[in-house]
Amino acid sequence: MSIFDFLDLLGTAAFAISGALFAIKKRMDTFGVLIIGFVTAVGGGTLRDMLVGADRITWMNDLNYLYVIIAAVILAIVLRNKIGYLSKSLFLFDTIGLGIFTIIGTEIGLQNGFHALICIILGMITATFGGVIRDTLSNEMPLIFHKEIYATACIIGAGTYLILDKFQIDQSLIHILTTLMVIAVRLIAVKFKLQLPTFYSN
Amino acid sequence: MSIFDFLDLLGTAAFAISGALFAIKKRMDTFGVLIIGFVTAVGGGTLRDMLVGADRITWMNDLNYLYVIIAAVILAIVLRNKIGYLSKSLFLFDTIGLGIFTIIGTEIGLQNGFHALICIILGMITATFGGVIRDTLSNEMPLIFHKEIYATACIIGAGTYLILDKFQIDQSLIHILTTLMVIAVRLIAVKFKLQLPTFYSN
Amino acid sequence: MSIFDFLDLLGTAAFAISGALFAIKKRMDTFGVLIIGFVTAVGGGTLRDMLVGADRITWMNDLNYLYVIIAAVILAIVLRNKIGYLSKSLFLFDTIGLGIFTIIGTEIGLQNGFHALICIILGMITATFGGVIRDTLSNEMPLIFHKEIYATACIIGAGTYLILDKFQIDQSLIHILTTLMVIAVRLIAVKFKLQLPTFYSN
Repeated sequence: MSIFDFLDLLGTAAFAISGALFAIKKRMDTFGVLIIGFVTAVGGGTLRDMLVGADRITWMNDLNYLYVIIAAVILAIVLRNKIGYLSKSLFLFDTIGLGIFTIIGTEIGLQNGFHALICIILGMITATFGGVIRDTLSNEMPLIFHKEIYATACIIGAGTYLILDKFQIDQSLIHILTTLMVIAVRLIAVKFKLQLPTFYSN
Repeated sequence: MSIFDFLDLLGTAAFAISGALFAIKKRMDTFGVLIIGFVTAVGGGTLRDMLVGADRITWMNDLNYLYVIIAAVILAIVLRNKIGYLSKSLFLFDTIGLGIFTIIGTEIGLQNGFHALICIILGMITATFGGVIRDTLSNEMPLIFHKEIYATACIIGAGTYLILDKFQIDQSLIHILTTLMVIAVRLIAVKFKLQLPTFYSN
Repeated sequence: MSIFDFLDLLGTAAFAISGALFAIKKRMDTFGVLIIGFVTAVGGGTLRDMLVGADRITWMNDLNYLYVIIAAVILAIVLRNKIGYLSKSLFLFDTIGLGIFTIIGTEIGLQNGFHALICIILGMITATFGGVIRDTLSNEMPLIFHKEIYATACIIGAGTYLILDKFQIDQSLIHILTTLMVIAVRLIAVKFKLQLPTFYSN
């Protein structure tokens, strides 16, 4: 297993944990917690696979995702009251996942011959739509529509990837730089409480 | 038409009726009642067909589903005030549908060469995600995430199917035993008010 | 570009604007406004493409949709306080879009060899499910399930298309008559405050 595959599964686990904790807070039962953990982790990739017309949905073809998600959900249930101590690690893993998922979605777009703008959208969908489906199934307005610079980090990351991809740079280095860019944008946004503008007025 | 096909349509009708009654209670208009009846009945199968990359979505290729659903929704509208008397029959048909849909999803998974665990998930999605889509479109948190041992019955049923499938047993007998297992789990759960644990704590 | 393609993009713009205004009212941020504008405009067509198993999702293969939507969303943000003056034009464009989208969905159904009833459903999904996804993502019960004769106009329009298609009539004339039919049904419904019946009773 390459480091990239390892980080992909780490991100999957982080997404599953955040989904499971969210479902616990919404007072769902074991099945609901498992499903919400699951869709948070694989929902974005599933939608991407459907949009590009992939022969196979990723998680249906590689059971490692399923195993990692089940283990992560059990971990979240067991540690639910102590998770506060882990919130910094979780935030880091989640942000790494955001970067890795953005890269995977962008690359799959390129492999399928889509225009750069569509690849950016696919990277963003892969990284963020698991959370959108989690919120929608939990009867909440998706967080990323009104609160955090989260999708923006993915869009900037996917753009970075596409620009670096034009040069003769080693693929691993592109992966590292893109992930660091996503992490940097998100950390800066959280640190300085940056938010996208809203336009509401009475 | 085989008995299995007949029970499939009976389950479809039961799902459509339960969806239509739900939509009536949510004060939807004729169109809303029809659509919610429709997605409750075919939503799980549609998602399954999309996930396995089927050439054709089942209900788009066989108009019997459409006819049965329209008839069932009209029936639900006409009998909406007397449906209390029918609730036991409806519960039975709905539970039969749960069993049949679980079997269909599991079998389609096997035919497409998926791992047993993925087949169980496909059986569960086929049987329960019509209801998840119904609840989400009606702006409610899906019932199966917090209330009933419903998906669990499907998972146990799909597992039963896969185990029986390993032996030299007649296919019809496997279908009957699997459906009886789903019905039994659900009846026992309702009878003894069994619920999956939740994990919420302040 | 044919007049039909032009009207398709005009309808796309109208749908994107209505989605963006809706998102602004729900106090979403820039990203949310863009996404909701986007899914309102292309959500119905995307679902249709997935259901018929299209090789490519329309908007992923023709960037004009993306450009028109981004321009329309920016327009909606800039003009958000003056949009009252434009509401009649917007209503007209939106209704034209409804007609064009219905035709496109119905035609794609025919091209893929589906039964007339399925083609009507595909026309209706193309025209109305962008709005359903918009409402669901915004945590509201879809408007068309309880308020307006909107989907009904599409169903009547798609039926009109299929009937005219049986005769030796010029394709452009069929397009014009179908669109006029959709517009007429909607205008009459709004003018006379027609609504579909609901069935709720205590």
